[in-house]
Amino acid sequence: MLPDLSRFGKKFTAASGIVDLMEDLGSALLSNPDMLMLGGGTPARIGMVEAIYSRHLRALVADDQSHYHLLGRYQSPAGDEAVRDQLAGLLNAEYGWPLDRHNIAITNGGQSAFSILANLLAGPMEDGSHKRVHFPLVPEYLGYADVGFSENFFSATKPALSLLPERRFKYHIDFDALSAGEALGPATGALCLSRPTNPSGNILPLAELQQLDTLAARHAIPLIIDAAYGLPFPGLHFDDSAAYWSDNTILLLSLSKLGLPGLRSGFVVGSPELIEAFSRANTILNLASGNAGPLFAASLMESGDLLKIPREILCPWYERKLESAQAAILQALEQVPCHLHVTDGAFFLWLWFPELPLSTTELYQQLKQEGVLVIPGDTAFPGLEEDWLHSRQCIRLSYAVEDDVMARAAEILGRVLRRLHGV
Amino acid sequence: MLPDLSRFGKKFTAASGIVDLMEDLGSALLSNPDMLMLGGGTPARIGMVEAIYSRHLRALVADDQSHYHLLGRYQSPAGDEAVRDQLAGLLNAEYGWPLDRHNIAITNGGQSAFSILANLLAGPMEDGSHKRVHFPLVPEYLGYADVGFSENFFSATKPALSLLPERRFKYHIDFDALSAGEALGPATGALCLSRPTNPSGNILPLAELQQLDTLAARHAIPLIIDAAYGLPFPGLHFDDSAAYWSDNTILLLSLSKLGLPGLRSGFVVGSPELIEAFSRANTILNLASGNAGPLFAASLMESGDLLKIPREILCPWYERKLESAQAAILQALEQVPCHLHVTDGAFFLWLWFPELPLSTTELYQQLKQEGVLVIPGDTAFPGLEEDWLHSRQCIRLSYAVEDDVMARAAEILGRVLRRLHGV
Repeated sequence: MLPDLSRFGKKFTAASGIVDLMEDLGSALLSNPDMLMLGGGTPARIGMVEAIYSRHLRALVADDQSHYHLLGRYQSPAGDEAVRDQLAGLLNAEYGWPLDRHNIAITNGGQSAFSILANLLAGPMEDGSHKRVHFPLVPEYLGYADVGFSENFFSATKPALSLLPERRFKYHIDFDALSAGEALGPATGALCLSRPTNPSGNILPLAELQQLDTLAARHAIPLIIDAAYGLPFPGLHFDDSAAYWSDNTILLLSLSKLGLPGLRSGFVVGSPELIEAFSRANTILNLASGNAGPLFAASLMESGDLLKIPREILCPWYERKLESAQAAILQALEQVPCHLHVTDGAFFLWLWFPELPLSTTELYQQLKQEGVLVIPGDTAFPGLEEDWLHSRQCIRLSYAVEDDVMARAAEILGRVLRRLHGV
Repeated sequence: MLPDLSRFGKKFTAASGIVDLMEDLGSALLSNPDMLMLGGGTPARIGMVEAIYSRHLRALVADDQSHYHLLGRYQSPAGDEAVRDQLAGLLNAEYGWPLDRHNIAITNGGQSAFSILANLLAGPMEDGSHKRVHFPLVPEYLGYADVGFSENFFSATKPALSLLPERRFKYHIDFDALSAGEALGPATGALCLSRPTNPSGNILPLAELQQLDTLAARHAIPLIIDAAYGLPFPGLHFDDSAAYWSDNTILLLSLSKLGLPGLRSGFVVGSPELIEAFSRANTILNLASGNAGPLFAASLMESGDLLKIPREILCPWYERKLESAQAAILQALEQVPCHLHVTDGAFFLWLWFPELPLSTTELYQQLKQEGVLVIPGDTAFPGLEEDWLHSRQCIRLSYAVEDDVMARAAEILGRVLRRLHGV
């Protein structure tokens, strides 16, 4: 039987994009083992990288003394001191950021970190008011959409959109709209963006990021930068954009897209006061973070692999993959009205069908029937209250797949979309 | 800088017993490396068990193919299907419980599971009312106290208390008070108890557990049984009490007290509807559970070690430890007015000083000054609204320590308490 659920319970068990996605990833394969899985955020299997991780894993367990550190200890609230020192040192050496361990907390992965952080900074306030986390640039990560413990938790500013040559397009922060709206008023507790953006692979230029951070600081709210796909690791930036941190930013890092999602591990980099608050809430909700992730990260840092793998392997690998995926998709959709977002990073293609004669949720169902799993874009506009037709005309594809999977998927995508557009 | 925090943020960053405890465990040792650590819930280091875990760990990473399963995959919302099948099969074979994988979800440890569950079942309701999680028997685990996303989240029924020979005492559920109060009315969303109880090592007899579950079912609320220290694993039951599950109960299991807290892994066993709700909320808040815990558990299940280690090693080991710890403490406190709770399980001594001339928080500070870390009992009565002097007269000690640590701690404890009592 299912007992009465609280308001929180009803909210968290109602329809949710991220739950549908994670269920689909499991069950779609059960119902159709040949399903072409372009749906999730699962990182690619890259033999050379797996071999390096195997080496680290074997080294970690080679010494029986290390087993206790891996299995038998609880970490303190902010996590293993030595690992936090090590990461602070690395970020200082690499970028000159003036950090020490008090700027860093170990987390059980990016999703867990974001859900705690968002609820620390937004929701019902003690004075009876209600604050929201604001996305200055949507589309954004569908997994953000449901993490608020209260309703009406996010807001968003509609982006500007430029059409570019060769069927490309790009979203931009509409700074005028951002400043004119309520985003910088008392109803906002934090600004947040992912960089590169999931789903569109958009990377906010450094100058605009600084502008955004300055705006946020002027209004005494932090800027959360979710670097799940970004710098310094897994480093999936294909342009020359730089990493960024200031004492007004909260940087979320994760090991997942390095190819290590099973470790559920990441870091928050922020002011000591913010890190202290985060660690306390994390202790209450999770008691402690797991040991395997930070010890694995320590091993990667010690050898230099934590930055070497992104620079020497992951980034070139995904960039090559992007090129062939883009070519396959553009060719398959040659006759279909379609724009492809410029991909500066991450591992997704974001397709916009401006004349789509049905919703992307229906398109998603038709594609699934035909054996291709994608993400309908409807869920990628958290907090956007305005009804925007565009938000029902986009889909996300992961290209972190084998070339032949992408080729077959492109063929099906082309066939279905030609049929739908009658071309 | 610390930005404005939400109501949730203020609540979660205010004083918290569990945060103080986890911080103490880290920092007390930094400030005094000789500190006698009787404070935490860290399981004992047992060489024979560590050797077995080392064997499993080495086997898990021996095969390069398994590394991907450990590191590279996301689990589906309720967790790895094969591991859930395996645990269902084991519980069915062992206890005859009619379970399949749909009754089981994998969690990131007991604390994470409880905090999600509690907030699914209590807090603000859609009809505007507010429900609470009720503890029919306090003292209870201090880590429960702060997990509610809203205020006034727990309630508790004051226990009956029997004085027993040889300076022992024991808490009992006061079923009359439980039925007479509001605990079984519309303001309660679930009953909850740990079995054995942390901190007192109390094990609710099977007949009373059934009575409690029947009462709960009659009022259409579930009974949460937190078996973090209990059956089937880590199995720290020193009496002959049995494991219990019904389709009205939600059983929380964890690998931590087996000696594996670094894995942050456990299981929820409940109705399929409850498991579905839990998994959805867990996906939103944590995306997925980690892989190391369930794969380690699978390896332990396959070899039979998951139940063999508790029965053949842990339970006898802790029971021996309990005997020597009790003897040392009772002797050291011979002249001090003191009662010791009957310990039927877990690895704590719960001491009651009925003539203590100061609060246990002050006693805790004095003991820390003298080099012994214990837990003041004040935090162990979550939800009890009545002012009960008794709740400020108890402390918890862990006896999961070396014998000489316990001997030195007992000596200091005796000295400090004799001084305080002027004997």
